[in-house]
Amino acid sequence: MKSEYSKLNRQHLDDFKNIVGEQYVFADEESLNKYGQDQTENLLYLPEVVIKPRTAEEISAIMKICDQDKIPVTPRGAGTGLSGGALPHLGGVLLSTERMNTILHIDERNLQVTTEPGVITEVLMDAVKEKKLFYPPDPSSRGSCFIGGNIAENSGGPKAVKYGVVKDYVLNLEMVLPSGEIIWTGANVLKNSTGYNLTQLTVGSEGTLGIVTKIVLKLIPLPQFDLLMLVPFRNLDQAAEAVSAIFRAGFVPSAMELVEIDALKIVSKFVDSNAVPITDDTAAHLIIEVDGNNLDVLMQDMEAISNLLTQYDIGEIYFAEDAAQKAELWKLRKRVAEAVKVVGYTIEEDTVVPRAELPALIKGVKSLGQKHQFEVVCYGHAGDGNLHIRIKKDGIPNSHGNKIMTEALHELFVLVKTLGGTISGEHGIGLIQKPYMEVIFQEANLRIMNGIKNTFDPNNILNPGKIFDYNK
Amino acid sequence: MKSEYSKLNRQHLDDFKNIVGEQYVFADEESLNKYGQDQTENLLYLPEVVIKPRTAEEISAIMKICDQDKIPVTPRGAGTGLSGGALPHLGGVLLSTERMNTILHIDERNLQVTTEPGVITEVLMDAVKEKKLFYPPDPSSRGSCFIGGNIAENSGGPKAVKYGVVKDYVLNLEMVLPSGEIIWTGANVLKNSTGYNLTQLTVGSEGTLGIVTKIVLKLIPLPQFDLLMLVPFRNLDQAAEAVSAIFRAGFVPSAMELVEIDALKIVSKFVDSNAVPITDDTAAHLIIEVDGNNLDVLMQDMEAISNLLTQYDIGEIYFAEDAAQKAELWKLRKRVAEAVKVVGYTIEEDTVVPRAELPALIKGVKSLGQKHQFEVVCYGHAGDGNLHIRIKKDGIPNSHGNKIMTEALHELFVLVKTLGGTISGEHGIGLIQKPYMEVIFQEANLRIMNGIKNTFDPNNILNPGKIFDYNK
Repeated sequence: MKSEYSKLNRQHLDDFKNIVGEQYVFADEESLNKYGQDQTENLLYLPEVVIKPRTAEEISAIMKICDQDKIPVTPRGAGTGLSGGALPHLGGVLLSTERMNTILHIDERNLQVTTEPGVITEVLMDAVKEKKLFYPPDPSSRGSCFIGGNIAENSGGPKAVKYGVVKDYVLNLEMVLPSGEIIWTGANVLKNSTGYNLTQLTVGSEGTLGIVTKIVLKLIPLPQFDLLMLVPFRNLDQAAEAVSAIFRAGFVPSAMELVEIDALKIVSKFVDSNAVPITDDTAAHLIIEVDGNNLDVLMQDMEAISNLLTQYDIGEIYFAEDAAQKAELWKLRKRVAEAVKVVGYTIEEDTVVPRAELPALIKGVKSLGQKHQFEVVCYGHAGDGNLHIRIKKDGIPNSHGNKIMTEALHELFVLVKTLGGTISGEHGIGLIQKPYMEVIFQEANLRIMNGIKNTFDPNNILNPGKIFDYNK
Repeated sequence: MKSEYSKLNRQHLDDFKNIVGEQYVFADEESLNKYGQDQTENLLYLPEVVIKPRTAEEISAIMKICDQDKIPVTPRGAGTGLSGGALPHLGGVLLSTERMNTILHIDERNLQVTTEPGVITEVLMDAVKEKKLFYPPDPSSRGSCFIGGNIAENSGGPKAVKYGVVKDYVLNLEMVLPSGEIIWTGANVLKNSTGYNLTQLTVGSEGTLGIVTKIVLKLIPLPQFDLLMLVPFRNLDQAAEAVSAIFRAGFVPSAMELVEIDALKIVSKFVDSNAVPITDDTAAHLIIEVDGNNLDVLMQDMEAISNLLTQYDIGEIYFAEDAAQKAELWKLRKRVAEAVKVVGYTIEEDTVVPRAELPALIKGVKSLGQKHQFEVVCYGHAGDGNLHIRIKKDGIPNSHGNKIMTEALHELFVLVKTLGGTISGEHGIGLIQKPYMEVIFQEANLRIMNGIKNTFDPNNILNPGKIFDYNK
């Protein structure tokens, strides 16, 4: 398929320099290397050029050239992706949105923010927090990832269990189509039944339909208080069962995370923290947070949840006393992914199932690990049924392109499908999960997705070969 | 365009009878008349036949015949639609889902319900309520509309302001494509980044992409308490301003409805109620509800909201004392649409703007009424910025096909667009709002919507001529 595309020539480079300015077009080895990788496994694919435009109009001009000459364009946020969505595996143009980093307008009258895509998620969260407003979706990488990348992957994070994911906050998007046309997908309103929902179609489309250049997000009032507790379980299955029991009892925690003991040991060592006592008989921890505007109510909720959990085989519950202790706990949780990768768990899966099926999923994962002889640790957003499965297999750092791992993961996703779940809860399909799309979807689904792609991008130049292999 | 389609012949009717059973195929005058109208203005378009299938497989068999022979198929729920989405204006098959009325499974472990599309929304809400679960989207027609129709229009209702609209609860859909293929659009999970979001694309697509045959909805724990108050304003603008002020102060009411005094007078007479005292100096009422699990907190919220509202020119606030008083207030609100239609306000618009722009919208609407000499009353879901505008113009019961009204409405939607809003918040575009799509969208948006339609329905047989006019 690659052969269908044109290689860049000197004229292209000159044209790009005329559009964005010479200093924002890069073809040196260091740049190509830097932008040839993201956080996905240990993969590297070099682009032919890296361009850093500042405006939608510049992107439009670039797209017109690439569309006409059939040059692949890979859009990229901060490069924190975990499915290879921003890897330029077919060469061509790597288009970085890093200079489009202005928060354009915090609309306190309407509880909305309009932002460019290259703003770091945490910067955006902090900016609206100053106005006592709240943008909840907070992926673990929030300190470095871009809000534009979050739109592309429909990111989640710990707060999703109470507040929903990115798609639940996106009201309207400006985007540049592969044709170079610049459109708004919807309107700046809380409810909308006006034509097909192009906004929701774009969220999670991994930069394959258009390049998002402005984002209008819904905000909510900032909750004033939160309380955090950590519950050690002696049995991993019971930890997973307890997750479902808490919701069935009518509680909606603002976070409900599960971390297996092996992952906790690794991250505690990695960040040199002994905030969480690690005892020999602990199998996993649940991190449970509640938030709201009435501290008494929150304390009652925490007590009630604690009481409910006494029916399980748990250790001593640890309550974070102050902001510093909360921050320490969250630091441990958020750096798990980084820590386990460093010690060799380079392959990451992002399965999601109905939350009551978590025990069955975890059991199945462990049994697959034994069968295929890989080490596995689990952690993730248990309240959402979203389990991150990290795999370490000596000599095989990448699942992508590896026959043994592909077979094992195929088995995993058949199980996930059987449990009513799917491949990815928040990381996307990108490059590396493509082989498993047919496990989840029928041929008709894939044909329709192809048709949608063809409608937006008839020449298949925008992030081609991501999510699925495209056939006209 | 109609001429492209085939007329039904005897063979078609025999085939349909073989598929669903003779007793579920209707071609008598009374049936054709009944299914030739919905709640939209005073429009009537006769289908050639009415079919009432029971299963997805029967629908699949019907679709295969119609797709092959180019027969238009109009799917229909309860016929409560307000934009003509279920009107068979090109003849052909009217396919009613009324026999597909089983709630298949209330999954208390995962807080989900799986249902067929022909279940009445209130029946579904009551069934999950018995399990202490909550399905919030509650259109005014909830006592008669079908959940399948709610999916088609992405319905809202009073609770949307706190709990969101239908799209926020739909996890997965089974649907029959025009080809006859039966697919699931997603998975039964709370977060999903696995390919294009066909679930969200289908919600609000007004039955033009597929016929939904099973629906998986997210449920939440049922809040235990709610409190309701009614606030009379002497000035309509101030009522609209107060809506935005309440949210800016950090409150998230579970309902925030506005009813103009003229509408209230009409409905009070219609249902023979004097529950709300109507004084000469009142211009509009806000109905404000809060809900949650702690009654003390709710009472504090109500008091704080009342205090905040004293800055406006308001009359005496009325607090509903018990369930009967609440029910009486809600009855008045919910029957406004019916009441104003009976006295001649047959034309209904469903505009939505960012909520702080409501005063500007209401001012604009009143001025348009003076300019074009029509009477107008407003009411709606003010917390969402969703304003229902009812228009009475003697001798012109329908906007559809009327030049004078089309021009006036064109002006209205230009204003709405200027305010950052759009045509429809919850009723859809259907047949009657088609002429205004180009006010809101660029040519590229409409071309993309056409392309999506073509992908799902290459022969344009499924609810053709709805939302936009289709061109290959």
